Amino acid sequence: MTKRVCVIGAGPSGLAQLRAFQSAKAKGEDIPEVVCYEKQSDWGGLWNYTWRTGVDEHGNNCHGSMYRYLWSNGPKEGLEFADYTFEEHFGKPIASYPPRAVLFDYIKGRVEKAGVRDWIEFDTIVRDVRARDGGFEVTVRNEKTDSEKTEQFDHVVVATGHFSVPNVPEYPGFESYNGRLLHAHDFRDAREFTGKDVMIMGTSYSAEDIGSQIWKYGATSIVQSCRGGATGYKWPENWTEVAGLDRVEGKTCHFTDGSTADVDAIILCTGYKHHFPFLPDDLRLKTANILAADDLYKGVVWNHNTDMFYLGMQDQWYTFNMFDAQAWWVRDAIMGKIAIPSDMATLEADVAQRKAEEGALADDFACIDYQGAYTMELIEETDYPSFDIQAANQAFYEWKKHKKADIMTFRNNGYTSPMTGTKAPEHHTPWKDALDDSLESYLQV
Amino acid sequence: MTKRVCVIGAGPSGLAQLRAFQSAKAKGEDIPEVVCYEKQSDWGGLWNYTWRTGVDEHGNNCHGSMYRYLWSNGPKEGLEFADYTFEEHFGKPIASYPPRAVLFDYIKGRVEKAGVRDWIEFDTIVRDVRARDGGFEVTVRNEKTDSEKTEQFDHVVVATGHFSVPNVPEYPGFESYNGRLLHAHDFRDAREFTGKDVMIMGTSYSAEDIGSQIWKYGATSIVQSCRGGATGYKWPENWTEVAGLDRVEGKTCHFTDGSTADVDAIILCTGYKHHFPFLPDDLRLKTANILAADDLYKGVVWNHNTDMFYLGMQDQWYTFNMFDAQAWWVRDAIMGKIAIPSDMATLEADVAQRKAEEGALADDFACIDYQGAYTMELIEETDYPSFDIQAANQAFYEWKKHKKADIMTFRNNGYTSPMTGTKAPEHHTPWKDALDDSLESYLQV
Ligand SMILES: Cc1cc2nc3c(=O)[nH]c(=O)nc-3n(C[C@H](O)[C@H](O)[C@H](O)COP(=O)(O)OP(=O)(O)OC[C@H]3O[C@@H](n4cnc5c(N)ncnc54)[C@H](O)[C@@H]3O)c2cc1C
Ligand SMILES: Cc1cc2nc3c(=O)[nH]c(=O)nc-3n(C[C@H](O)[C@H](O)[C@H](O)COP(=O)(O)OP(=O)(O)OC[C@H]3O[C@@H](n4cnc5c(N)ncnc54)[C@H](O)[C@@H]3O)c2cc1C
Repeated sequence: MTKRVCVIGAGPSGLAQLRAFQSAKAKGEDIPEVVCYEKQSDWGGLWNYTWRTGVDEHGNNCHGSMYRYLWSNGPKEGLEFADYTFEEHFGKPIASYPPRAVLFDYIKGRVEKAGVRDWIEFDTIVRDVRARDGGFEVTVRNEKTDSEKTEQFDHVVVATGHFSVPNVPEYPGFESYNGRLLHAHDFRDAREFTGKDVMIMGTSYSAEDIGSQIWKYGATSIVQSCRGGATGYKWPENWTEVAGLDRVEGKTCHFTDGSTADVDAIILCTGYKHHFPFLPDDLRLKTANILAADDLYKGVVWNHNTDMFYLGMQDQWYTFNMFDAQAWWVRDAIMGKIAIPSDMATLEADVAQRKAEEGALADDFACIDYQGAYTMELIEETDYPSFDIQAANQAFYEWKKHKKADIMTFRNNGYTSPMTGTKAPEHHTPWKDALDDSLESYLQV
Repeated sequence: MTKRVCVIGAGPSGLAQLRAFQSAKAKGEDIPEVVCYEKQSDWGGLWNYTWRTGVDEHGNNCHGSMYRYLWSNGPKEGLEFADYTFEEHFGKPIASYPPRAVLFDYIKGRVEKAGVRDWIEFDTIVRDVRARDGGFEVTVRNEKTDSEKTEQFDHVVVATGHFSVPNVPEYPGFESYNGRLLHAHDFRDAREFTGKDVMIMGTSYSAEDIGSQIWKYGATSIVQSCRGGATGYKWPENWTEVAGLDRVEGKTCHFTDGSTADVDAIILCTGYKHHFPFLPDDLRLKTANILAADDLYKGVVWNHNTDMFYLGMQDQWYTFNMFDAQAWWVRDAIMGKIAIPSDMATLEADVAQRKAEEGALADDFACIDYQGAYTMELIEETDYPSFDIQAANQAFYEWKKHKKADIMTFRNNGYTSPMTGTKAPEHHTPWKDALDDSLESYLQV
């Protein structure tokens, strides 16, 4: 009998899994039956923008964390699909830091071409998974019909992302703060903050990028609370770095360095949780946001039940093409072309070694190399098109340097594609002046 | 063997269930083992205020819908516990429209006296319930330890409320609105809207009350979008009623009557969903927010499995004492003192008759009478202290009239307690001028 594979989530990781199976099928191989459940009404995961916050139209946690006017925070040369280049999709070279709509279009392009949309059941949330009878019992609710079903699978691939459920700390005075208090997850339109004084908590990508964006769209002042010390970036005049937050009184933030700021809004850029409400203890991954995730052999196999896989659960320098590497590898493991060790000692030794290696990494450049090497390690065991990972690493290095030189202009640079060797053109307008983030505007020459 | 009862939720309804069993025990009766699971870290349900929005500290839907400076929107004389009066709790008569903190204190007072706190497992979310082996298998996750367990029960009482999961409509232009867009569920501090132009959508209690509150705390203007026609209230100068929303462009709302308004914020007071993510099809209630809920015999028994009960699922004029009536009745049904019909025809006929009666109600006054009579119907079949329901209805009638006369002053009135016969004193400060909503301030003479 044909094996049945359940893929949970149709974001970049889940879609990579569908494309991986479809590409094997296109080569004439016998593939399992693949069913993908996606709680949103469209594919693309975080790249599928929603104006909603809190809960979605069905009353479930709103998945979306992306906001209007978001431009890629890393160079597109680092995430390019090896089997579907930007040039193939757009018919010409494009600049290196595309806005969300452009990347969404690119993600869709590949899976539309592959013709896998009807493998996906949309508006369908996975509510429960249980290991049973040597396989898995998966219970899903179709939110359109408000009805459930339980299906049996041989394998489950969890691709639900981990930048969706916010980690929200509590500080004294939050309960009586007289302004707008939100986590980055709920940030949507920078123009809401035009003319406002805003406190940004944290030093994550979200802190940098949301701060930069509200600056771009006319916030009066930005105070960035950096608990762990200065970021080292050169911020504009009206942007101040201060210490960690001590407490809030009324509209006033008091920081541990004794400074204070009266602010109209507090934006908590305090990260996300790995959150799997639909998984029981024996199947549930618990890991921090790190490069060598816990309990995952080769970064993808669930050590405690090797018929189950997780995609994209690592902290991410590499994204789309790393998800591809993982998805092709998982496909081949499911199809029996790659053998998964059957003893726990070997599985654990693999994780332990990856953790030791991560622990020894000296700086961000070393982290980039490390994740590039991990991506290549998986690719080499599959038929995913190999590519010049050094060229991709190089795009990341240059990005880091450009950001360090000037965080408000780094997006004006272009890099060389590791897939086509083409150098990206400069964008027609500096990022700071480009207020229109539409695909049409970006693709204009 | 002792029966086991699972109560889901420790809000006013769930706590009524605990108190009902405890009062039987206090009379020397043999009661079942009662376990209550509550996802929050404290009891009180909606009355347990949180500054959080979106998700709670564990990454689950944030339950809280209440906001700062909230005062009871109906007279306390309509919701008083018959077995624990306001006078008993506060040691003196108090005014009729207490702020949230005062009602929270009152709710807690009764259950602290009853000593049922250790029947509750806090920070514990019910994730799944399945009918099995003539009872129920309930799977819960303790969010503190991040671990799950599954327990077997003879009965399940669902008391998870239905004013927590927002119903959020979509209008053209929401995806590109340049201001703050939120549902009432996420409203917290009125001072965020001081000096702002705000559009309020809807004519619900939330619309009236959130509008009134931001007016009280200095919003510049309020535009209320009433799709179904005028509310009939006399609003202040800077409050305008307009027709339904057609679309939004930038910061401009266009209404179907051709009027427009540029607003800094849109607050959607568009109601809530009955949402039970933890229940499968065969156990899940589906009903609108009405007085005679679907599929519930006597308003509490789940017709499709009569070992299961729902509390407080109706639209609510009566609240705390109606939940009590339901909880005492359910207790007696579980303890075998009240017989539940075993044939579906009788169960369905009961619901059908209640629906027919609701359909014939002429106005709000008739609805109040109807729900008062329903409450009494249940009380008469139990040992819950009976009380003068006409006096309670009377408090609601006067409230309606006072609100009609002047919606900005109705809270300055006092009514007669149906339990003690005492007339409530006038509050020391008119609602409009009382900016401090603390318990201490309210109880001052
Ligand atoms: C604000 C922000 C900006 C970012 N910017 C960049 C960037 O510029 N470049 C970059 O490369 N990366 C960026 N990322 C990283 C991002 O994580 C990846 O690009 C990518 O979206 C991860 O893909 P994924 O498929 O693993 O997860 P997601 O994109 O999160 O997709 C997961 C999918 O699973 C679905 N799902 C979840 N739970 C269930 C369930 N129970 N049942 C059914 N379906 C479910 C979701 O609806 C979603 O569609 C950004 C992330 C954030 C939050
Ligand atoms: C803004 C607002 C103002 C209101 N004002 C008034 C008023 O002035 N007067 C009045 O009488 N009524 C008012 N109400 C009505 C309110 O519904 C009731 O007063 C009362 O809170 C209902 O009690 P409940 O126990 O049924 O539900 P809730 O108070 O909602 O309590 C349900 C409990 O179940 C818990 N829970 C939910 N899901 C799970 C799960 N899966 N596992 C474990 N626990 C779970 C929740 O955390 C919560 O503690 C107001 C409601 C709102 C939203």
